[in-house]
Amino acid sequence: MDYFFTPRGIAVIGATANRLKGGYHILKNLITGYQGGIYPVNPRYNEIDGLACYPSVKDVPDPVDLAIIFIPAAIAVDAVRECAHRGIKGVMIQSAGFAETGDSGRALQAELLAIKAESGIRIWGPNCMGLVDAVNRHVFSFVLNSIWDDGLTPGNVSLIVQSGMLSAGFLIDTVSHGTMGISKACSLGNKADINECDILEYLITDPRTDAIGAYLESITDGPRFLQACRQSRKPIVILKGGKSQKGAQAAMSHTASLAGDADVIRGALTQVGVTQANDFKQMLDLCRTRARYDRIPTDYKGRIGILTYSGGAGIVSADFADQMGLEVADLSTQTLEKLATVYPQWMPPANPVDFWPAIEKNGPEKVYQTAFEAVCSDPGVDAVLFHIFIGGFVQSLDIAPFASIAEKYNKPLFIWLLGKRQEALEFQLHAHEIGVPVFRELKRAVECMAACFA
Amino acid sequence: MDYFFTPRGIAVIGATANRLKGGYHILKNLITGYQGGIYPVNPRYNEIDGLACYPSVKDVPDPVDLAIIFIPAAIAVDAVRECAHRGIKGVMIQSAGFAETGDSGRALQAELLAIKAESGIRIWGPNCMGLVDAVNRHVFSFVLNSIWDDGLTPGNVSLIVQSGMLSAGFLIDTVSHGTMGISKACSLGNKADINECDILEYLITDPRTDAIGAYLESITDGPRFLQACRQSRKPIVILKGGKSQKGAQAAMSHTASLAGDADVIRGALTQVGVTQANDFKQMLDLCRTRARYDRIPTDYKGRIGILTYSGGAGIVSADFADQMGLEVADLSTQTLEKLATVYPQWMPPANPVDFWPAIEKNGPEKVYQTAFEAVCSDPGVDAVLFHIFIGGFVQSLDIAPFASIAEKYNKPLFIWLLGKRQEALEFQLHAHEIGVPVFRELKRAVECMAACFA
Repeated sequence: MDYFFTPRGIAVIGATANRLKGGYHILKNLITGYQGGIYPVNPRYNEIDGLACYPSVKDVPDPVDLAIIFIPAAIAVDAVRECAHRGIKGVMIQSAGFAETGDSGRALQAELLAIKAESGIRIWGPNCMGLVDAVNRHVFSFVLNSIWDDGLTPGNVSLIVQSGMLSAGFLIDTVSHGTMGISKACSLGNKADINECDILEYLITDPRTDAIGAYLESITDGPRFLQACRQSRKPIVILKGGKSQKGAQAAMSHTASLAGDADVIRGALTQVGVTQANDFKQMLDLCRTRARYDRIPTDYKGRIGILTYSGGAGIVSADFADQMGLEVADLSTQTLEKLATVYPQWMPPANPVDFWPAIEKNGPEKVYQTAFEAVCSDPGVDAVLFHIFIGGFVQSLDIAPFASIAEKYNKPLFIWLLGKRQEALEFQLHAHEIGVPVFRELKRAVECMAACFA
Repeated sequence: MDYFFTPRGIAVIGATANRLKGGYHILKNLITGYQGGIYPVNPRYNEIDGLACYPSVKDVPDPVDLAIIFIPAAIAVDAVRECAHRGIKGVMIQSAGFAETGDSGRALQAELLAIKAESGIRIWGPNCMGLVDAVNRHVFSFVLNSIWDDGLTPGNVSLIVQSGMLSAGFLIDTVSHGTMGISKACSLGNKADINECDILEYLITDPRTDAIGAYLESITDGPRFLQACRQSRKPIVILKGGKSQKGAQAAMSHTASLAGDADVIRGALTQVGVTQANDFKQMLDLCRTRARYDRIPTDYKGRIGILTYSGGAGIVSADFADQMGLEVADLSTQTLEKLATVYPQWMPPANPVDFWPAIEKNGPEKVYQTAFEAVCSDPGVDAVLFHIFIGGFVQSLDIAPFASIAEKYNKPLFIWLLGKRQEALEFQLHAHEIGVPVFRELKRAVECMAACFA
C-alpha cells in the first residue's frame, strides 16, 4: 500500500491547464507538496505549469508507482489498462460515473476489477477524493488548492471517509478552524477494490497515526474489518451512515453501498472495542481526544474531578458523568483540606469543586492554582474536567502551567470553554498547540472523557 | 412584577466608587442603559460618578420602585427592612451568604421572608445575578460592564437561570458570538421569595419574549409551574440540573435546592408540552429555533426535505430524522421532474437531494436555485434542511433569496453549515440577522427541527 501513500513518481491522467477543473487542482496540489516526479498525462498539452506533459501513460519515464485518474468513466477503464501494462502498481480513480450511476457504470466498474484480476494492479476509488496527508504534505486529490492556505495542520488523527465532498468539507472546516490537526484523510468512494479494510490495516501500522476515525456507509468484508479493529492498539472511532431505512436507501444511491443491519453492526463494533460516533464533528472530537490520551493507565477507572466557576455547570457535569459511565470522584480528606484553605468558611469543599465563592474571597489566581493542584494530586481522581471562562472575571489565562501540573500527576485534562469570541478562540488555539483538548459544549467534553475510559 | 423589570427609580444599596467591586458594576450598568432615576446608597460617599449618594434608602427621593442590594448578608436584612418601611415594592438581593451557607445563612433568609410577610415587599434572590434585559437595556446586575461592549444583542428569547455565574457566562459567550439575541435573562439564585413560577408567568405575558428557556435545579411549586407551562402559548425549553445523585447533592450546596426525582419531573414536563434540553448551548439553540418558528401550521407533520452537497451528510441527516421522529419526505413527481432538469441523466433524484453530481454538471448557482425552489414548493415537504459549505466550491452565498423562497412557501428553513472559519462566521452572522437559524453540528440542526414539530 505504500505506493498509494508514498509513491515514487505520480502520473496524473486527465491533467489540464484549465484552472477551474479538478484535473488542474490535482496537479497543482502535487506541485505544492509532493517531492517526487510528477507526470501530467494529456494528449492536448506539451507542458502544464512548467511540467512536461505526456500523450499517454506509456510515455511517462520511470519511476512511477501511482496514477491519479480524472477523466470520464468510459475512457478511464482504458487508462487503467494502460497503467497495468506499464507496470504501475496503483491507480486512484477520482472521476465519478461508475457503479453509483446504474447498469452501464456497474459494467465499467466490473471491467476495472477484471483488469485488477489479470494484472494485480490495485484500484483506489472510483468516485472519490483520494488522499490528503497533512504530515507528508501529500494532497493526492482534486480538492481546491486553497486548502493549503487554510492551514493544513498536521496532526495524529487519520480518517477513512466514504464520501468525497464530505471529506473535503470536513477537512477545510477542521483545518481552517485551527483547533485540530490531521494526519491522513482517505476518501474511498465506491471501494471497487481498495476498501476500508486495506486502509484501516495500513493506518494501524502507520507511525504517524495515533487514532483512526471512519465514516462508512457499508463494511465490505465484515470479518476482516472486525479482526483488524480487535487487534488494533490504536483507538478507532466509527460513524456508520445508513442506520435508518431512508438513510440506507440514500447510501445505496450515494456509493452503491448495502448499509447492513444497524443493530448487528453496532453490536459487533462494540465487541471489538470500537468507539461509535453519531455525528461528524463529534467523531473528530472523539478522535482527537482519544489520540491525545491513548495511554491511560489500566488502573484508572474514570473517577473524575470537576473544577468549575459555576455551580450549575458543575451539577450538569455530574449529571453527564453519571449518564456516561464516569464517576464523580470522592475527594480525599487531604484534598478537601487543601481546598478549604481558599474556600470561605461557610462552604464545605466537595466535588464538583465549585470555586466561585473562593474566587470572590481570594481572587482567581490563587484559587485556580490551589484547587487545580489539590485535585490533580488526589490519588482517587483519574482525570480532570476544568471549566474555564475567558473574557470576564478572568481576561486571559495561560493554560500551560495547568497542563504541566496535570502532566506531573499523569491526569488527563479536559477543558470546557465559554467566553468572548476572540479571547476564547485564542485560548483554544493555544491549548491545541500544547495538546490540551478544549470543548465548547459541555456534553461533548464529558462524552470525550468517557470515551477515554470506556 | 413590573417593578422588577421596568421600575420607576432604583436605589443601589452597596454602591461604591471602587471600580473592582460588584457594587460599582451595578451602578455603572444602570448608568449605561437605564433611563429612570438612579440612587446610590452608601454612607461613605456623597456622590459616585456624578450621582448623589445617600446615606440610607430612607433618604432617597421618590419615585423608587426597586432596590438592588449588594452588601453582606448580615446587614442586608436590615436594608430590606428599611426598603419595606420606605414603601419600595421590590428588592433584588445579589449578595450571597444566605441559605446556601448553612444554618446562620438560613436564619437570615428566614428573616427576609418574615419582612415580606409583614410588609408585602417582594424579594428577588438572594445569591443571584439579577436581570439582564437586552431589549430595554436594563442590566440590573453586578455582571462586568464589559458586557455592553460585547454586543448585547436584543432578541426574542428570555431565560430563567438558577445559577449566577452561569447566566453571566452564558450571556457573554452568546452575545459576543453574535449569533443569538436575548430578551430578558433572569438569574434567580436562592429563590427565597421570587421563584421560577413568578418569572415564568411574567415572561409568558411579556410581548418581547417569544420563547422561554430555563435552567433549574429545583421546581419550587410544581403544580403552579406545570399549570403555567400548560397554558403557555410560547415554547418553553427546560434544562433540569441535578438529575443524578451527585448532581443533586451539588444542587443542594449550590442553591440549597432539593432537586427532586428526575423521572417524575421529566414525565410531568413532557405532559405539559415542555421541550427538555440536556446541555446549555443546546438549550439556547432549541430556544432560538422555537422562537423563530413559533407558528408552524398544525397540519405540518414534520416531513422534511434535505438538500445536500454531500451524499454522506444526506444519509446521516436521514438517520437523525428517523431517530428524532421526523420523516424524510417522499417528493412529488413534479418535484422529482424539476430536479431531473439539473441532475445528470444517470442519477435518479430522491430525498435526501444530493445535488453534487448536478453541481458538477450545471454549477452551483443554477442547481441551488432549481433544487431549493422545487423542494420548498412541494406540498409534501413541511420544512427544509439545507446543507451549506462556504469557502470551497462556493466561496460565498447570499442566503436572503433562499430565505425569501422558503418564506413564500411557508416552509421553515434550517441550515447546517461547514466552511472556512472567517467565511462561515460571516455567513452565520448574516443568516442570524435575517432570521435563518444556522447550526454548526448536524445533529443539533435536526434536533432543533424535530423540536419544532414535536
